[in-house]
Amino acid sequence: MTNLAHVLSLLEERHQRILSELIAFAAIPSVSTDPAHAADLDAAAAWVAGTLASAGPLTVRTIPTPGASVVYAEWLGAPGAPTVLIYGHYDVQPADPLERWRSPPFQPTLRDDRLYARGVSDDKGPMLIPIKVAEAFFATAGRLPINVKFLIEGEEEVGSRHLEPFVAEHRELLAADVVISADGAMWRIDEPSLTVANRGLAALELTLTGPAKDLHSGRHGGSVANPLHAMARLIASLHRSDGRVAVAGFYDRVRELSAAERAEITALPFDETTYLAQVGAATAVGEPGYTTLERQWTRPTLEVNGMWGGYQGPGEKTVVPSVAHAKITCRLVPDQEPHEVVALVARHLERHVPTGTRLTVTPGDHGARPYHIARDHRVLREAEAALQATYGVAPLIVRMGGTVPVAEIFHRLMGLDTVYFSFSTGDEDFHAPNEFFRVHRLHEGLAAWTRLWHRLGAAAAR
Amino acid sequence: MTNLAHVLSLLEERHQRILSELIAFAAIPSVSTDPAHAADLDAAAAWVAGTLASAGPLTVRTIPTPGASVVYAEWLGAPGAPTVLIYGHYDVQPADPLERWRSPPFQPTLRDDRLYARGVSDDKGPMLIPIKVAEAFFATAGRLPINVKFLIEGEEEVGSRHLEPFVAEHRELLAADVVISADGAMWRIDEPSLTVANRGLAALELTLTGPAKDLHSGRHGGSVANPLHAMARLIASLHRSDGRVAVAGFYDRVRELSAAERAEITALPFDETTYLAQVGAATAVGEPGYTTLERQWTRPTLEVNGMWGGYQGPGEKTVVPSVAHAKITCRLVPDQEPHEVVALVARHLERHVPTGTRLTVTPGDHGARPYHIARDHRVLREAEAALQATYGVAPLIVRMGGTVPVAEIFHRLMGLDTVYFSFSTGDEDFHAPNEFFRVHRLHEGLAAWTRLWHRLGAAAAR
Repeated sequence: MTNLAHVLSLLEERHQRILSELIAFAAIPSVSTDPAHAADLDAAAAWVAGTLASAGPLTVRTIPTPGASVVYAEWLGAPGAPTVLIYGHYDVQPADPLERWRSPPFQPTLRDDRLYARGVSDDKGPMLIPIKVAEAFFATAGRLPINVKFLIEGEEEVGSRHLEPFVAEHRELLAADVVISADGAMWRIDEPSLTVANRGLAALELTLTGPAKDLHSGRHGGSVANPLHAMARLIASLHRSDGRVAVAGFYDRVRELSAAERAEITALPFDETTYLAQVGAATAVGEPGYTTLERQWTRPTLEVNGMWGGYQGPGEKTVVPSVAHAKITCRLVPDQEPHEVVALVARHLERHVPTGTRLTVTPGDHGARPYHIARDHRVLREAEAALQATYGVAPLIVRMGGTVPVAEIFHRLMGLDTVYFSFSTGDEDFHAPNEFFRVHRLHEGLAAWTRLWHRLGAAAAR
Repeated sequence: MTNLAHVLSLLEERHQRILSELIAFAAIPSVSTDPAHAADLDAAAAWVAGTLASAGPLTVRTIPTPGASVVYAEWLGAPGAPTVLIYGHYDVQPADPLERWRSPPFQPTLRDDRLYARGVSDDKGPMLIPIKVAEAFFATAGRLPINVKFLIEGEEEVGSRHLEPFVAEHRELLAADVVISADGAMWRIDEPSLTVANRGLAALELTLTGPAKDLHSGRHGGSVANPLHAMARLIASLHRSDGRVAVAGFYDRVRELSAAERAEITALPFDETTYLAQVGAATAVGEPGYTTLERQWTRPTLEVNGMWGGYQGPGEKTVVPSVAHAKITCRLVPDQEPHEVVALVARHLERHVPTGTRLTVTPGDHGARPYHIARDHRVLREAEAALQATYGVAPLIVRMGGTVPVAEIFHRLMGLDTVYFSFSTGDEDFHAPNEFFRVHRLHEGLAAWTRLWHRLGAAAAR
């Protein structure tokens, strides 16, 4: 048996044990958006550090940041072989609304070959895979085929807010040939895929204030500005009725796709009817002139993620509230800049504030540029081959509507490209109740990461 | 001394005793919203029944309803004189937030000629007045100048929920020439006033559903309808940009004010700058073509009292939510009908549902017609004269922006007009901490009710 076969075989033997470890990991409620979970973030970091330390002769460090700690580990015993920096995150999205979970979000539960728990698909499952692959290589050969550095952060779900200064400060420590990200997601369950671009992000929150205090709508209704009416009018002004973003200058920096790029997307197996049925939407809605996939992957958007004010309880409370709020995020495509987009949206809001209300805009404390990798990148090619060997078919080349700020950070600060090599799937409800990770994807991921490392090591030896 | 003078004089002698009785009454925590206070409601009903019974030869009954009991009493010994049905309530608002009371809400406390206690202004003080007036008439003349029926309920603060079936069932028992309500409030402290109209109410709640579940706004943003965008557009469609309600047919049944009515409102002492400073609003906003008082009192409104959907917590959650909600109430003026207005608004909403979302409308479980009394109503005239005699100035003729369902119930079920004859004042914090009732208002109320009954009896004798 070759070493590759040995490692693959050992990992198969360990499937059950690895699943149990993931269950333990997913039980830690490491919600990074909520300060009440600070101790849970520490516990998750300690769990990752411990798992790395027991995987083999890796040097493991837990490095504090002003926010959640970074867990760093390295093994550099393969001179001549490439060095890959592996990225993942141990923090998770909030679990609310809790009442819509079929099993508690932090009591990982197996149903139908799926493991249900908050964060299990994004990113605890995919992130655990390369650690277990390293463990299996060490167990069979005492070494890895390539040099490996792990960077596992705890703030991805809050925009990786301290990752940029961390990377800037630790450029030498992190020096590598390429980043392989265990975060990201495959496009769909049926075919393997590789992602060559993702959208960026710009965020802001706004508050409209009307009267100084909540007023009785019987006595005062109709005489002073109702900030809920004002908010509706202001939010409605952000889009034209055809779905295009109405913010002046919003599309100015957007690079149009080439005909070849559009053709590549059109050729992908995508059935809009099936897609709409999956998400339970009656019809596709969005910017005119582009297909649904083009809109998701290659066009910028402005989405309201939350809007609220006044009474939300049962029955009626006849109030003209004092304030109304909204949260907005924009997805960006090359060559949009986050801070520019926030400024454009803020200027639009300021120009459209309804009479009698006062606007406060708070820019999100982070943004992310859009990212893309060259189609002929060497590591992307090896990843393609590793997936082909694992699945028996060539992976689809796709893009990502979402945002993984790390790719842009590594590119800007260190000149490194990022290959997304995650084994979660876009349908696994990772920002919704009942998030799950497919158990067979865990197994496929273990095999594919093993093959990728093996191929990168073998290519270097040739 | 005339009989009128005798009664007024006796009441003056009894000021201190009547205040003591009010203090005892206000010490009973008869909070109708809280089932834990059921026994206190019973105690308050018993206190009212006992006070009525000891006032003179009244027939007193405590009549159970599916909720709090109604205390009913009558004296019908004045053949040829009119019969008035006196309305009041013995239940009170909850006292919370308790920590903001300067003295405990159910330990009535005198400070600066004000009696502080929950419910003392709404409605225990004003309600006690006609009982004490009856007692004084009986004590001096052994009879009343008119026929009197008291209907004192215990559910006003929970929407008088059993009053309508009670009235429907007891039409004969309650038969009268007019209702005089001890509930309501004078417009302001400086001048006496009589309220000749109040607005009605129509309520509904709406939900817009987009995708079947919350979606990640990175992956799906820009490809399916976001119900928050749809809600903003739909709510914005309800008003024209000038502030007028845009619902087709909304104003069709609205009776325009006569020039004389408008002149009467214009003549009232109302300083808009002071008003705006009181509510902390930058500017007056509403339907064009009407003054602020006209808008508050005589024009219908459509107000969103609550609107919500998506993520409301700290930081960001990049979600396209599945649903968005809004609560709407309309204030109605003659001759609008609540169910018609709900239907008009629902039809507007249905016609404007944005693409890709599904609308559900739930009408509120109660509405109330607007109410007004003819300016030349005989009892209103006598009330005006009674106030003039008591205060030395003619009362202001005002309206009420809010809704008092009882007037509409008596009008619809029994054809009876209601004259508001309360001696509380709108500034007495009756739905807030530190509710109080001005002691001089208690005295003025005793004199004014005495004069009103005397005038009604004397007019009948002429």
